[in-house]
Amino acid sequence: MSEQETSSPVNAAERFDADLPGSVERELVRFLHEAAGQIRMAEPGFVSGVDALTDFVLGGGKRLRPTFAWWAWRGTGGDPAEAEGVLRAVASLELVQACALIHDDLIDSSDSRRGRPTVHRAFARQHDENGWLGTPEMFGLAAAVLIGDLALAWADDMFNTAALPPERLAAARPAWRAMRTEVLAGQFLDVRTQATGDSSPEAALRVSRLKTAAYTVQRPLHLGAALAGADSGQTGALREFGDDIGVAFQLRDDLLGVFGDPSVTGKPAGDDLREGKRTLLVALGLAQAGPHQAEIIANAIGNPGLSEAEVDKVRTTLTEVGAVAAVERRIDELTTTALAALRAAHLAEPAATRLAELAVRATQRTS
Amino acid sequence: MSEQETSSPVNAAERFDADLPGSVERELVRFLHEAAGQIRMAEPGFVSGVDALTDFVLGGGKRLRPTFAWWAWRGTGGDPAEAEGVLRAVASLELVQACALIHDDLIDSSDSRRGRPTVHRAFARQHDENGWLGTPEMFGLAAAVLIGDLALAWADDMFNTAALPPERLAAARPAWRAMRTEVLAGQFLDVRTQATGDSSPEAALRVSRLKTAAYTVQRPLHLGAALAGADSGQTGALREFGDDIGVAFQLRDDLLGVFGDPSVTGKPAGDDLREGKRTLLVALGLAQAGPHQAEIIANAIGNPGLSEAEVDKVRTTLTEVGAVAAVERRIDELTTTALAALRAAHLAEPAATRLAELAVRATQRTS
Repeated sequence: MSEQETSSPVNAAERFDADLPGSVERELVRFLHEAAGQIRMAEPGFVSGVDALTDFVLGGGKRLRPTFAWWAWRGTGGDPAEAEGVLRAVASLELVQACALIHDDLIDSSDSRRGRPTVHRAFARQHDENGWLGTPEMFGLAAAVLIGDLALAWADDMFNTAALPPERLAAARPAWRAMRTEVLAGQFLDVRTQATGDSSPEAALRVSRLKTAAYTVQRPLHLGAALAGADSGQTGALREFGDDIGVAFQLRDDLLGVFGDPSVTGKPAGDDLREGKRTLLVALGLAQAGPHQAEIIANAIGNPGLSEAEVDKVRTTLTEVGAVAAVERRIDELTTTALAALRAAHLAEPAATRLAELAVRATQRTS
Repeated sequence: MSEQETSSPVNAAERFDADLPGSVERELVRFLHEAAGQIRMAEPGFVSGVDALTDFVLGGGKRLRPTFAWWAWRGTGGDPAEAEGVLRAVASLELVQACALIHDDLIDSSDSRRGRPTVHRAFARQHDENGWLGTPEMFGLAAAVLIGDLALAWADDMFNTAALPPERLAAARPAWRAMRTEVLAGQFLDVRTQATGDSSPEAALRVSRLKTAAYTVQRPLHLGAALAGADSGQTGALREFGDDIGVAFQLRDDLLGVFGDPSVTGKPAGDDLREGKRTLLVALGLAQAGPHQAEIIANAIGNPGLSEAEVDKVRTTLTEVGAVAAVERRIDELTTTALAALRAAHLAEPAATRLAELAVRATQRTS
């Protein structure tokens, strides 16, 4: 292959197609290296914070949001000459996600993430091991708040410095803005629903729509389509697809949170119950249960000391009352309507096939 | 005055000159109204969070950062036709500041700010009054984390949607980026210095340089000059001015944190000591004290139960050992070198006079 062929825009886009997670990670490494390098020189005392963010971002994740955004851009006729800039713009979604996870783990008092200690726990441990002043908990809290903030600020920096014509970024900005506000609204609503004890399926669905359907799938698709300059018909169909697949994705997550294998999901089984998460699975369980069964479920939610045997009892109960079957049925229905919307979007190949595969994989996964 | 005169660009800029805090607030009201309106319709459950942010942003503050940025823009020959867009861009600094304060108050466990309960305390109280599930403290924490995040995301949205030519925003972006990273680095270093108990004047000065000199004065000036397209000579002189006046500003803050009148500063006297803040004032006090005096100071730092009488004893000690006089002397020196740098920047009037006034006021203030 000649030098010229290797570096042609179409080839660049196809190279990214072939290994999207790897390409996204290279883009993240490049940005983090540059951003961290600047502040590292200015302020060596901040290195441990910057390193914690870098490790977190590069330490795992399925790169799902950049992947949805990328295929939406490819499928709606994005200009291959802009592939490098688009890759950077969509990779920045991983920094928004880093903020969301680091702050969520702090809010939920979670101990581990991807099989490693959460950021607030890691810094609390550092404090404890060094016998520093104050309490390990408050030091961990401070570090997690500030490192999450850094991720959010850097997400904007990465997105806004993508090498794209200003009108492209301007067209994508409504999706970018909505996405960040919606994920915060979803998290706020999640916390509030847990506090007020609202156990209705409606409340569970609202949280799912904001935290997962909008933030994880629909807005990334919207962003990709906007970066390509897609028309409103294609964009609308893609967003419809995203809304359905996003809710299905969250429902699968709800099932995994109670039934998932810890060695595959990377988090302790039943933690969703201990944290008091008001999922649609739990809401349907409560709505369909008899008095004794409802008591088993209700007593488990938000009980931090829940034993493995008690988690098992909740599993049996949710299955007996038909909540598990109902959620599985809903996932099937949503996947069907989602795939119909995807066909109506008339995307170019291979994007159409890839998004259909993603949809199926995201709703049938085991981790 | 004819219609045409009233709406000319020069008149718009001069109208903002005449009441800068008021103009900044109108710009904030306009943005918050628009941003809050969108999410309010989409998600009514988020209203209490959005309202808390709006109340916080509009509830006070000296609008110091937008003011420094504005006069730098005016003084380095900013195009009056861009006054509206520049006002929006510099007003967005208040949203960065809202995030910094809301998260700082959480990290420091502060009870009040501007004479009102801090955000985490207000939400903890709401939780408590309603007898909700979980603990009030964790609910307050969650709300403060998410509302601070919203402020940071909206700061970027406000800045990036200012009606300015793309090349203007691109020119200002390095200052915008550096400012947000530096304030987080400063806060991180502040927390770390308190935890490790590093009582050296050098550590105190590093924190001051990042949190106040860079974030509050130097970068806003840098941002304003970049928005005007100022040359490197003027920009350099302005930043020199900002660095000196910023450190002087922080030193005045240190003095007010121990000696200030609570009815004027809006926060309990001695709270800096109780929180264990490692200020230059305290560092110099320790460095210049005899063994008995050092003990009085050291025992007070980070002691949450410090009584009013004990705060008084620390005040007397810091004065006796000469730390207060040393800090006052340093403020004088820095103000002198700052004003010399300002003259060397050769700014247009009235910006030159206004910045000189601001410098003197910021370092001689009582609140």
